Amino acid sequence: MKKKFVKDSCVETTDVVQPSNVNAYYLVFGGHMISLLDKAACISAIRHCESKVTTVSMNSIQFYNPAVVGTILDIKASVNRAFNTSMEIGLKVTGTFPNENMAVKDICRAYMTFVAIDDNGKPIPVPAIVPQTAAEKRRYKEAGIRREAQKELTNKLKKRIVR
Amino acid sequence: MKKKFVKDSCVETTDVVQPSNVNAYYLVFGGHMISLLDKAACISAIRHCESKVTTVSMNSIQFYNPAVVGTILDIKASVNRAFNTSMEIGLKVTGTFPNENMAVKDICRAYMTFVAIDDNGKPIPVPAIVPQTAAEKRRYKEAGIRREAQKELTNKLKKRIVR
Amino acid sequence: MKKKFVKDSCVETTDVVQPSNVNAYYLVFGGHMISLLDKAACISAIRHCESKVTTVSMNSIQFYNPAVVGTILDIKASVNRAFNTSMEIGLKVTGTFPNENMAVKDICRAYMTFVAIDDNGKPIPVPAIVPQTAAEKRRYKEAGIRREAQKELTNKLKKRIVR
Amino acid sequence: MKKKFVKDSCVETTDVVQPSNVNAYYLVFGGHMISLLDKAACISAIRHCESKVTTVSMNSIQFYNPAVVGTILDIKASVNRAFNTSMEIGLKVTGTFPNENMAVKDICRAYMTFVAIDDNGKPIPVPAIVPQTAAEKRRYKEAGIRREAQKELTNKLKKRIVR
Amino acid sequence: MKKKFVKDSCVETTDVVQPSNVNAYYLVFGGHMISLLDKAACISAIRHCESKVTTVSMNSIQFYNPAVVGTILDIKASVNRAFNTSMEIGLKVTGTFPNENMAVKDICRAYMTFVAIDDNGKPIPVPAIVPQTAAEKRRYKEAGIRREAQKELTNKLKKRIVR
Amino acid sequence: MKKKFVKDSCVETTDVVQPSNVNAYYLVFGGHMISLLDKAACISAIRHCESKVTTVSMNSIQFYNPAVVGTILDIKASVNRAFNTSMEIGLKVTGTFPNENMAVKDICRAYMTFVAIDDNGKPIPVPAIVPQTAAEKRRYKEAGIRREAQKELTNKLKKRIVR
Repeated sequence: MKKKFVKDSCVETTDVVQPSNVNAYYLVFGGHMISLLDKAACISAIRHCESKVTTVSMNSIQFYNPAVVGTILDIKASVNRAFNTSMEIGLKVTGTFPNENMAVKDICRAYMTFVAIDDNGKPIPVPAIVPQTAAEKRRYKEAGIRREAQKELTNKLKKRIVR
Repeated sequence: MKKKFVKDSCVETTDVVQPSNVNAYYLVFGGHMISLLDKAACISAIRHCESKVTTVSMNSIQFYNPAVVGTILDIKASVNRAFNTSMEIGLKVTGTFPNENMAVKDICRAYMTFVAIDDNGKPIPVPAIVPQTAAEKRRYKEAGIRREAQKELTNKLKKRIVR
Repeated sequence: MKKKFVKDSCVETTDVVQPSNVNAYYLVFGGHMISLLDKAACISAIRHCESKVTTVSMNSIQFYNPAVVGTILDIKASVNRAFNTSMEIGLKVTGTFPNENMAVKDICRAYMTFVAIDDNGKPIPVPAIVPQTAAEKRRYKEAGIRREAQKELTNKLKKRIVR
Repeated sequence: MKKKFVKDSCVETTDVVQPSNVNAYYLVFGGHMISLLDKAACISAIRHCESKVTTVSMNSIQFYNPAVVGTILDIKASVNRAFNTSMEIGLKVTGTFPNENMAVKDICRAYMTFVAIDDNGKPIPVPAIVPQTAAEKRRYKEAGIRREAQKELTNKLKKRIVR
Repeated sequence: MKKKFVKDSCVETTDVVQPSNVNAYYLVFGGHMISLLDKAACISAIRHCESKVTTVSMNSIQFYNPAVVGTILDIKASVNRAFNTSMEIGLKVTGTFPNENMAVKDICRAYMTFVAIDDNGKPIPVPAIVPQTAAEKRRYKEAGIRREAQKELTNKLKKRIVR
Repeated sequence: MKKKFVKDSCVETTDVVQPSNVNAYYLVFGGHMISLLDKAACISAIRHCESKVTTVSMNSIQFYNPAVVGTILDIKASVNRAFNTSMEIGLKVTGTFPNENMAVKDICRAYMTFVAIDDNGKPIPVPAIVPQTAAEKRRYKEAGIRREAQKELTNKLKKRIVR
């Protein structure tokens, strides 16, 4: 299988918060934000695998500043690391606030795991990824650290508990 | 501040997957599922704090079986543990499949962190929680383990990297 | 066919009013409320029949207090009475108002009729229902009274009018 | 207050069923249909009163034939009768089926009650209505019969039951 | 093929602007307005052709006055002229403003081109149209002028530029 | 007022067609596509003016190939030319078809006009634009040609017709 570069799966997308996207406090609804993230991550995963993909888990989504109606959201997604049949996608959202002189703030950051699937929904191998820039290499290593930490946590929780 | 029981923040909600909720493979769209989770978690957090709340992070969302059009989704949310100004909400979704003789399957499981906020959006203390049943006590401890693991991971990633 | 109890078809669901659910006066849009009711009633009917179902009529929907953005809606639905191929579903919505110290108010009450259908859309028999509690027995009788009143009204309107 | 004619509140609207409007059986979702009805009835009531209005009850919604994706829906709404502060709105939906040689079928019929309200949400008097055609006069009388039947039913249910 | 009159394809539809239809300035979202126009034009084209149709181009959409939450939109669409396989649909939207004493204002005007297609998506001939009233004849001629102007413009842009 | 470059207003956004975005033929709904275009154009205009903006007209939207469920849409928008208070925004959509080996096709092309407005909705001057690349200069000239053609057409239609 052909190896892929990070730039092959880069997705940049932009949206503006509409009144229908906010919650009861008129801040952007968490579920709306994650819909945007899931869509961007899904496109990134498809570009890496050129096959069907499905969301396996959202490992961490961290919110920094609330977006409001009118905030322009810039979403960046790319594959951080490919494992056998799965990929970690990293996502970053920044917001431009037209009502604060076009100020730019961090909105959220997320890591999601997708697997490539065949037409019957069975997992299939994904292309390896070749990180090139320093930032790409750092994200590649971090993805491994997050994966290890997740395994350790799962073990720790399992050991203690018989469900 | 009055202590609260887990049952005070229990939210049970039910939904049925409509054709407008599925992705390009006709499986439930990840973003739709998380909108449902975020809404249920938000209601649970409000019931615990009786104040405004906001999503801080989604620590982990794990998908098990894909839901399809017609699947009945049962979502359960409750506060697992309260910290100073934040709460971990645990969520579990099971699906009933009318087209498979009402078979019941696990759909997903998630942990989200909310903070209570005042009218200016500043974090405020949340009531302590008193776990009562064995399951509630287990979830209370697990919430602490997840929190520690998250801190360790953050430190490990920080040590290695100067951004 | 196996008889069913009322609790077999009980559906409890919770929602919070978002800015996208309100009408031009910023009160919850009637059509949105009824979408929630129709979904809950549909799930209740499926749980009673374990077959496909379809809405035949909404016999009465009465609104008491307007819900606003942020109101938490608790919707309860269950089968009041089963006839040959149809069922009356009773629904009740209460609202919790976080902006009024978590005050609880009646929002609306509704009765809907569903029929069970086969894969060709033809009506099929539904299981009988066994009311157990005093409230369940009262609702069972009331469903009969509403059905009779509906028949009488239909006759009265027919007698007078040749369309 | 100026009297009004039925034609002053006539609303004719047309919609086509989209894939996002259907339920899990790919028939038009009951809740979607009623959103359309509520919107048309609301416009009709505003045209009659020239004030704010709110839905009080949906007295009866009867479904005849299921609409599918592509069905063109013609919705007609008008005020049947005005009482002190309330109005009965009558609604009729017919469907044109492009996939069946533009066949036209009855889809549903509904009666809804709206009240006129002032800026504080308090009911205010509505203009009287002057039915002119035979059909308008028939609908005017029927609205009275339905109102009486509703009162009788409410009394019958009250007598039997102490809640 | 049977000729058709303009009135055969007349579509009148009415909508009220909801809070979910407005943009970040609380004016009706352009994309929402055009969704309404596209749906009305599509129904008009289906009524003229009695076949499947598809949007080819939106030749001009001009906005006059902004609609706000609560504005009642009256949309009129009809076929202005039929060519071989395509039709120009003319659309006009007026708004009634309940918060300004039911004042009526022009909202927008648009011209769209649709083609009739068979089940494989190939263009098929459309019925000729017979304009009858003076306004219909004027719109018929204008459609021809717009078509010529469009062709000229395309040529002018082509001559200058080799892409 | 500071002059701006075309790259200052470049917006690139990506979306994937969901089942809720298609029309009755399961092709992407024209109105959905234009909502995406209007949002991207609006963001581009805001980036050029750093003020509020509003859609004045959509001068031409041309559809080339139909997008289906699963098609990845890449939307590019930028300011082609600034006039006194208005700007022409050019938009281009290409689609990647995962179900046809990631084939890439033209989906549509559009030109929209926005004006910058102050807080009272009155038009205000917009920054001039400095086209730099050959393509930018070509688009700048074409925007002028389209504007002239539009004026000529308006005059031709006015001369013939007294409304």
